[in-house]
Amino acid sequence: MIKITLPDGTLKEFSEGSTPMDVAKSISEGFARNVISAKFNDTTVETVTPLTEDGSLVLYTWKDTEGKQAFWHSSSHIVAQAIEELYPGVKLTIGPSIENGFYYDVDLGEGRSISDKDFPKIEKKAIEIARGKHDFKMRSVTKDEALALYKEQGNEYKTELIENLEDGTITFCDHDTFTDLCRGGHIPNTGIVKAIKILSVAGAYWRGDENKPQLTRIYGISFPKQKELTEYLELLEQAKQRDHRKLGKELELFTFSQKVGAGLPLWLPKGAALRERLENFLKKAQKKAGYEMVVTPHIGQKELYVTSGHYAKYGEDSFQPIKTPKMDEEFLLKPMNCPHHCEVFNFKPHSYKDLPKRFAEFGTVYRYEQSGELHGLTRVRGFTQDDAHIFCTPDQLDQEFKNVIDLSLYVLNSLGFTNFKAQVSVRDLNNPDKYIGSVENWEKAENAIINAAKEKGLDYVIESGEAAFYGPKLDFMVKDALGRNWQLGTIQVDYNLPERFDLTYKGSDNEDHRPVMIHRAPFGSMERFIALLLEHTGGNFPLWLIPDQAIVLPVSEKYEKYAKKVLNSLENDEIRALLDNRNETVGKKIREAEMNKIPFMIIIGENEEATNTISVRKHGGEDLGSISIKDFSDLVTSEINSTLKSF
Amino acid sequence: MIKITLPDGTLKEFSEGSTPMDVAKSISEGFARNVISAKFNDTTVETVTPLTEDGSLVLYTWKDTEGKQAFWHSSSHIVAQAIEELYPGVKLTIGPSIENGFYYDVDLGEGRSISDKDFPKIEKKAIEIARGKHDFKMRSVTKDEALALYKEQGNEYKTELIENLEDGTITFCDHDTFTDLCRGGHIPNTGIVKAIKILSVAGAYWRGDENKPQLTRIYGISFPKQKELTEYLELLEQAKQRDHRKLGKELELFTFSQKVGAGLPLWLPKGAALRERLENFLKKAQKKAGYEMVVTPHIGQKELYVTSGHYAKYGEDSFQPIKTPKMDEEFLLKPMNCPHHCEVFNFKPHSYKDLPKRFAEFGTVYRYEQSGELHGLTRVRGFTQDDAHIFCTPDQLDQEFKNVIDLSLYVLNSLGFTNFKAQVSVRDLNNPDKYIGSVENWEKAENAIINAAKEKGLDYVIESGEAAFYGPKLDFMVKDALGRNWQLGTIQVDYNLPERFDLTYKGSDNEDHRPVMIHRAPFGSMERFIALLLEHTGGNFPLWLIPDQAIVLPVSEKYEKYAKKVLNSLENDEIRALLDNRNETVGKKIREAEMNKIPFMIIIGENEEATNTISVRKHGGEDLGSISIKDFSDLVTSEINSTLKSF
Repeated sequence: MIKITLPDGTLKEFSEGSTPMDVAKSISEGFARNVISAKFNDTTVETVTPLTEDGSLVLYTWKDTEGKQAFWHSSSHIVAQAIEELYPGVKLTIGPSIENGFYYDVDLGEGRSISDKDFPKIEKKAIEIARGKHDFKMRSVTKDEALALYKEQGNEYKTELIENLEDGTITFCDHDTFTDLCRGGHIPNTGIVKAIKILSVAGAYWRGDENKPQLTRIYGISFPKQKELTEYLELLEQAKQRDHRKLGKELELFTFSQKVGAGLPLWLPKGAALRERLENFLKKAQKKAGYEMVVTPHIGQKELYVTSGHYAKYGEDSFQPIKTPKMDEEFLLKPMNCPHHCEVFNFKPHSYKDLPKRFAEFGTVYRYEQSGELHGLTRVRGFTQDDAHIFCTPDQLDQEFKNVIDLSLYVLNSLGFTNFKAQVSVRDLNNPDKYIGSVENWEKAENAIINAAKEKGLDYVIESGEAAFYGPKLDFMVKDALGRNWQLGTIQVDYNLPERFDLTYKGSDNEDHRPVMIHRAPFGSMERFIALLLEHTGGNFPLWLIPDQAIVLPVSEKYEKYAKKVLNSLENDEIRALLDNRNETVGKKIREAEMNKIPFMIIIGENEEATNTISVRKHGGEDLGSISIKDFSDLVTSEINSTLKSF
Repeated sequence: MIKITLPDGTLKEFSEGSTPMDVAKSISEGFARNVISAKFNDTTVETVTPLTEDGSLVLYTWKDTEGKQAFWHSSSHIVAQAIEELYPGVKLTIGPSIENGFYYDVDLGEGRSISDKDFPKIEKKAIEIARGKHDFKMRSVTKDEALALYKEQGNEYKTELIENLEDGTITFCDHDTFTDLCRGGHIPNTGIVKAIKILSVAGAYWRGDENKPQLTRIYGISFPKQKELTEYLELLEQAKQRDHRKLGKELELFTFSQKVGAGLPLWLPKGAALRERLENFLKKAQKKAGYEMVVTPHIGQKELYVTSGHYAKYGEDSFQPIKTPKMDEEFLLKPMNCPHHCEVFNFKPHSYKDLPKRFAEFGTVYRYEQSGELHGLTRVRGFTQDDAHIFCTPDQLDQEFKNVIDLSLYVLNSLGFTNFKAQVSVRDLNNPDKYIGSVENWEKAENAIINAAKEKGLDYVIESGEAAFYGPKLDFMVKDALGRNWQLGTIQVDYNLPERFDLTYKGSDNEDHRPVMIHRAPFGSMERFIALLLEHTGGNFPLWLIPDQAIVLPVSEKYEKYAKKVLNSLENDEIRALLDNRNETVGKKIREAEMNKIPFMIIIGENEEATNTISVRKHGGEDLGSISIKDFSDLVTSEINSTLKSF
């Protein structure tokens, strides 16, 4: 008999050679039907792998990330078989699962290619194979056997892979007539895959090396239900429509210039103004919360970052030091604002009566990213953090942490993010050497965070081992309108920098003490936050934030004078309004205003001029009818006040 | 006879060998008495140098910069003589005039030094010599004679200087018993110098090389009237009190950190808030003037600045390129914002109907300065320009230039600068090769600027040859409260960058045209402007701008509750107020509030609480007596409105 521990701590005995599926069935037949993958003693195994020793077992279903990975990895085998059957002589290379789906890199051979026209036939063949309910079966092979198979096929890619493996560690996975070199991690059988979609093809070099042959990468995704595929494709289409790179261009919020450089956004007028409104919104709340703004340079001496430890962290992989003409000084682009704020704190001696000091800055930082990793505004080389650092006494940490949670919640709520969880990252107690600072301080800080999360009623999880080496933290995990998760608004406790910068304050005992630091940024970065907001709202920003709140559309040039009067009146009421006085039909003007996501269209014609009113149409089509300008202004104000409470 | 042309264009004939002083006398005896220096055919000459050919002559008095330079250079000879007499065996080296006065570097010999205690005796001796009315007389000497003199004296410094000179070009200047190696440029005689002050001594290496002997540098200044010296010393004392570095520290506006680096200011909360008020003030006016804010990164690819020409200008002498880990890309800290704004303009095609586009940004730029040249906020390595670039059609240039003048005048007036002139910098017509762009465009632009200056009623001068190579410009030369001149608010026309960045717009003729660019920055840089404002106002900023407008001073803790009520009330009226509730006497609180330049001190005691009033004392001492909080708020508002008109 062997002892199996399950994630909830229960311990059960099974006869040696029992499989994860046997364990699943011992829990319930219904549950077992959903189990598609397993992990035993932290190693991925098949659901049919015989267990021969005591250990911890985790069983996964489609709902788990690990389950999806096994599902998609298995699907790549099915698609590979389909391709082998459709393109005889194709050479397979590798086919891993990825975040959403899987791919397979293949060498189709001279003169053959796959285009989107071929996708349906691949999908058809793959689903036929899947329906055969073929079991995935792992078997060990010797290196010689493995090499013999692929040499016979003339597949130099698999041969190269096998040559790099140790004899005795090589396994194949078989299903139906198909065999592939594979480490394992499959679902029980092909029949669980009910829907398969080939998404795209791309070129990819063998082993990512441009000096090696170019292969065809076939991307796909699969699901246990057809309905889920349909929903996924809808989501994909919505995500495409809401892609912040597309919307940012259409709404003229930002642009990139090849000459300025990749990953360095240029904010166009409408985007810069939106950014400023966001900044002002936060500044106002921060002022109430007792923050003080500071302004610090975008560079600092290399020594500053050696002191802070950032040079050790970012130095080699980021922008390199900036030398001076006589080569006698070295500066770095700042990767973080904290060292500067420590020096601000150090500008004069402090007493405990001065604390907490809360220094805030919209500080632009620069970090080098590989050009292949850049993505719109979410992965850039320069970004502006809504940064602040709180310097407080250890006794104040608890209250300060709670205050930061309040501010973060205010920000999320004001921007329409209502679906989020908190993640508290604490030490890995098995790896105490990974962390700096005293155990006592760590305990105090972790307790402060957990208590704050509890008291503020956050829905939180604790993640062991996810803390930074210098302190524990709390992150908000926000779900956007498409159900995607984003990490937002980190609150980080730090015992390290006060030490490194020798920060002190005079206590009531007249002795020097070390303050604690809190790093926090409710938006994270202006760039990433605006990208997220664009994708969350599809460009339909909250009314207080949107670039243009209203557009005045005279039905003909006869009413231009009255239209201008309306425009002035709106501007006086601080409503951001445009006038479209082009010689175009109102229908066309409305269509364009819809595309530009303008919340209110104000139509001006004979009747409106005669009655000194305006006709208002909301974005999306709702007709508010004929109202006075004053009523409209009140409507806008009340809609803003309903979403934007003061802090 | 020789023909002499005077600056006003008049041409007069004189017998060969006439001196500049003869020419001066031919104009008027009174004028001649004031003439102290001259320039003939662009070469500095003595007033007694015989003129032997036709040419242009400029005569200088004390009022001219060139006159002052001759005056101070001559004074350095007098002081050198005094030192030679007081410190026998001293070795003289060089003694030039500088911006304010002169210095002389001397080797006093082993064991001797000069301290401020010695200044009076040097001054006394120098003024005795001056009173002798000794003529300054130039004479040519052979290299051998020159070397012989200084070898005899054992002066290795002068010997070294002479060894580097060509025989036939060496001259001495004699006066009284004193002789010095000298190129010339003196006033007629020592008697013109009526007041001499030794200001300071400092160490200085021979030829600025730290491997060479250290000399004693004696700084001095002199004047043609005792009264002028007295005034200058008063000014110097005032300037010391108003030094922005001193005030910036006392008022906690900004600081520098050795770790962050020299020349990289850190703005403290009060300074950052003041900066933001200034920015908001300009933003508001710019919005009315049709500007749009943009935000661009602080770095760009090196190629961007090669395109713009800035790499050729700043490249070698400034911060060096930033390399990336794989060394495959190079970036530069931006020395200017214009290249980025050109790329903003280029983000989409433009029609003439879109123009002018006015892109504004508070853009922080970085330029390397030698550490010895850094000075507080006026000479830094990173500074934020209140930058904007106007892209317009050639036809719009005239109007746009006038609009920029209006904005600049609004800024100057709102900040209390009422004493200024404009300087229009145009081409040097004798050096057409120095400039890029067509002659036609240059004429158009120069005329536009001059017409605008005339129409706006500016007091302006035209400076030939002072234009940048890429276009003419207008600068405001502002006189501060101490009578010192500052250059502020450059408006620069540019034909170069639109060409280099291939900027175009579609004209009404449907052809591509090149826009004209205007660069402008009414403040210049936030750092330099705030430094200037600090020195101009001595920290007594305009009420709308000053960090703290009022401070509430309860006479004892009994009145703290009422004091807090008053504070709240003021804050609700958006008055920036502090509360000083320390257990100190009101006298001490008032003294500190005076030092902190707080405009209104609000004293709270029994009577105020009983009558629900406040007692107000203005900075400087004026007593406004007992008034209601509402009346005080109205007073503050009306004082602000009287200086801060809207644009």
